[in-house]
Amino acid sequence: MQASILAIGDELTLGQCVDTNSAWLAEQLLARSVETREHRTVGDDRAAIAAAIRELAGASDLLLITGGLGPTEDDVTREGLADVLTPGRELVTDEAAVAEIRRWFDGRGSRMPERNLVQALRPETARCLPNPRGTAPGLAAERDGCLIFALPGPPREMQPMFREHVIAALKTAQSDDHVILTAKVNAYGVGESSAAEKIITMTARDRNPLVGTTASEGIISARIRATGTAAEAQRLIDETIERVERAWKPFAFSRSDTALPEAVGRLLRDAGRTVVTAESCTGGWLGKLIVDIPGSSDYYLGGWVTYTNAMKTACLGVEPRLFGEFGAVSEQVAAAMAESALAAGGSDHALSITGIAGPEPSEGGKPAGLVYIGLASRRGDSVETCVRRFRFPGERGTVRDRSCKSALQMLRFELIGEGQRRPMLWEARDVTRSGGKAAGVADGL
Amino acid sequence: MQASILAIGDELTLGQCVDTNSAWLAEQLLARSVETREHRTVGDDRAAIAAAIRELAGASDLLLITGGLGPTEDDVTREGLADVLTPGRELVTDEAAVAEIRRWFDGRGSRMPERNLVQALRPETARCLPNPRGTAPGLAAERDGCLIFALPGPPREMQPMFREHVIAALKTAQSDDHVILTAKVNAYGVGESSAAEKIITMTARDRNPLVGTTASEGIISARIRATGTAAEAQRLIDETIERVERAWKPFAFSRSDTALPEAVGRLLRDAGRTVVTAESCTGGWLGKLIVDIPGSSDYYLGGWVTYTNAMKTACLGVEPRLFGEFGAVSEQVAAAMAESALAAGGSDHALSITGIAGPEPSEGGKPAGLVYIGLASRRGDSVETCVRRFRFPGERGTVRDRSCKSALQMLRFELIGEGQRRPMLWEARDVTRSGGKAAGVADGL
Repeated sequence: MQASILAIGDELTLGQCVDTNSAWLAEQLLARSVETREHRTVGDDRAAIAAAIRELAGASDLLLITGGLGPTEDDVTREGLADVLTPGRELVTDEAAVAEIRRWFDGRGSRMPERNLVQALRPETARCLPNPRGTAPGLAAERDGCLIFALPGPPREMQPMFREHVIAALKTAQSDDHVILTAKVNAYGVGESSAAEKIITMTARDRNPLVGTTASEGIISARIRATGTAAEAQRLIDETIERVERAWKPFAFSRSDTALPEAVGRLLRDAGRTVVTAESCTGGWLGKLIVDIPGSSDYYLGGWVTYTNAMKTACLGVEPRLFGEFGAVSEQVAAAMAESALAAGGSDHALSITGIAGPEPSEGGKPAGLVYIGLASRRGDSVETCVRRFRFPGERGTVRDRSCKSALQMLRFELIGEGQRRPMLWEARDVTRSGGKAAGVADGL
Repeated sequence: MQASILAIGDELTLGQCVDTNSAWLAEQLLARSVETREHRTVGDDRAAIAAAIRELAGASDLLLITGGLGPTEDDVTREGLADVLTPGRELVTDEAAVAEIRRWFDGRGSRMPERNLVQALRPETARCLPNPRGTAPGLAAERDGCLIFALPGPPREMQPMFREHVIAALKTAQSDDHVILTAKVNAYGVGESSAAEKIITMTARDRNPLVGTTASEGIISARIRATGTAAEAQRLIDETIERVERAWKPFAFSRSDTALPEAVGRLLRDAGRTVVTAESCTGGWLGKLIVDIPGSSDYYLGGWVTYTNAMKTACLGVEPRLFGEFGAVSEQVAAAMAESALAAGGSDHALSITGIAGPEPSEGGKPAGLVYIGLASRRGDSVETCVRRFRFPGERGTVRDRSCKSALQMLRFELIGEGQRRPMLWEARDVTRSGGKAAGVADGL
């Protein structure tokens, strides 16, 4: 079964809103073994809507339409659909829908504006679908074997209607003999090309499962899609996940949608260990990412945002002479921040970040993107500290994002017993305390 | 001039990623008087790409394509474009692009993987566009009067290339006689319906300028679009911005794309004042938002993430009896956090946030979404502290996002001399120190 998705609205074509409905629908469909081949977005224009519906319905088994079902004059999805289903014929009033809309207003103690009556109009051959959360009924129809559903644009109205009406229609069209299963393996600290190279034998285009790599904000993902009977597809998925994880070791941190902070959080919780943070250029972002995860209070105690040197000294006791001798962006200050944070917080681990986020260089010419990340860890009675030096490319936001992710990956390496010997992407190895001497910037694998 | 936008990638059609590029591009185009009539998304499928390019180029003056220019086998945008531009002919290697890609790797101290050479291939009649931020050159071509640009998918590579190459091409195609100008006014702390109601006379559909409101992550924006000669359109825009700002006072914090942290940062810099942060449930997010802005070291000193009660006491000296008597999520603890942070940081202002982000209730049944935000400010020798109580709806991420934004808006109110009397959206006024007694949750305006 192949699907297409059509989003309707001037606010979408003109870029005033990002269309999140189409991706949501496609993901829901894929989880039910239906592949989406195309998304389209057209404005509130009757002829453009009709043309898109005609073309997409002709090429798919399922067409999902969102938007343009409101009561205002610019909402013409009903008319566009009628131009395809029943050309030349008028829309008809659906009395059940009129009653439904009237009830909706009654339930809120207000009178239905006359204008809302247009929402009960439908093409003669379509059915109205009740909308429990709004006044816009959906529409369902069939044309040359293609199922067509038109749903309202607001996600909180659209999503329950999708679940109630579209899924039911899919079930009757599916079987266990041919399913599509998807999975993902995520890695951080490795370049996209190196990662792709490592799994090149799996990424041929005609294979089952299909494997592709994507990169987003430094996270490299292998996306796996297997087809077959339910059992076959599951076996292919499991096998492939393991192969990718092996190839991307130790950088692969999760399957499915688990983000790096969650993966690290699970390891901390399982090990019964705690962490604190001491941040300069990231300004609290690392703490924010850790706290994004519900239940993070089990392992995160808190942290310091020591943005100025004075705060580094006042809060963390960093000796002022270090600033003069090495600068605030230095291995020495990163180490001092991590060690002081560990002591002050009484945690098992402490992560520190000090760097130049940019856009300007700083500290007498140190370049934007230069970041030192420290990790101090308790081992029995002693403390072990490691600092890595990075030269991240990109803008202020990118430098800070990669700083946080690299810090989390360093902690993860510690927790899985990998240690800190393996270079990570954008790392400049030569001055770190902890190991190798390879010069230049690493690309991970 | 009419544009179409084509996004390419299986991860998009299958809903694994939300396409934000198309909306960004459409908005950029509209700001330059170019209306986008259609967006399309197809997968990494050479035939589908070629068909979409053929159709969209045939119907538009400008076609912008994003994605599918990576080095891996599933990236076939180059091939799809060649099938339209130079059917039956092979891609050619662009030597300048090879050199560029090699330089890119050299500059990062690593060797170019062979695989990346495919990124220097282009259709014979296309030009390569240098990509300063990545290895994928863009492509530019023309077909039957339609300008075609193919740009890489990652926004941080795509956006500067759009600015450099596409805008230059548009300039030559525009005239001053009929322009479209757009503008935006942004507000926080007010409900969407109230905000829309306040400017209802401006939002009729047949007006020039067109005004519409959108809401995204709590930020309410009035989007203004004026057409006419350059001078006329500018006058309409200026006039309308002022009317909207007046109607949304004091909640309107910026025009155009200036985010709330930047607007507040400017006020701090102009006043020569500084701020520190003390965060619990937001975990450093507020600090992160402030540091997002380049130059924030002029006014942001740093902060504390006191996620546990022990950290609140150890770092900020919050008296443990307060936790027993009122709970960590209380007016008293918010006030103590702000006042201690102000004293410890030596700043002019201190913001504190303590709340229950959820998903679970906490502290003996205090509901998720309950958040206290404190602001301590120096006035000469004395300190003035105000705490507001909020009941934010939504999930953990939403509660924390609104907490940060509300804190920033409180500081902004302070800096513009508005004070803290005016209720904000989701505020529960009855227990705040600073003023009114209106019960229930406020909706701003």
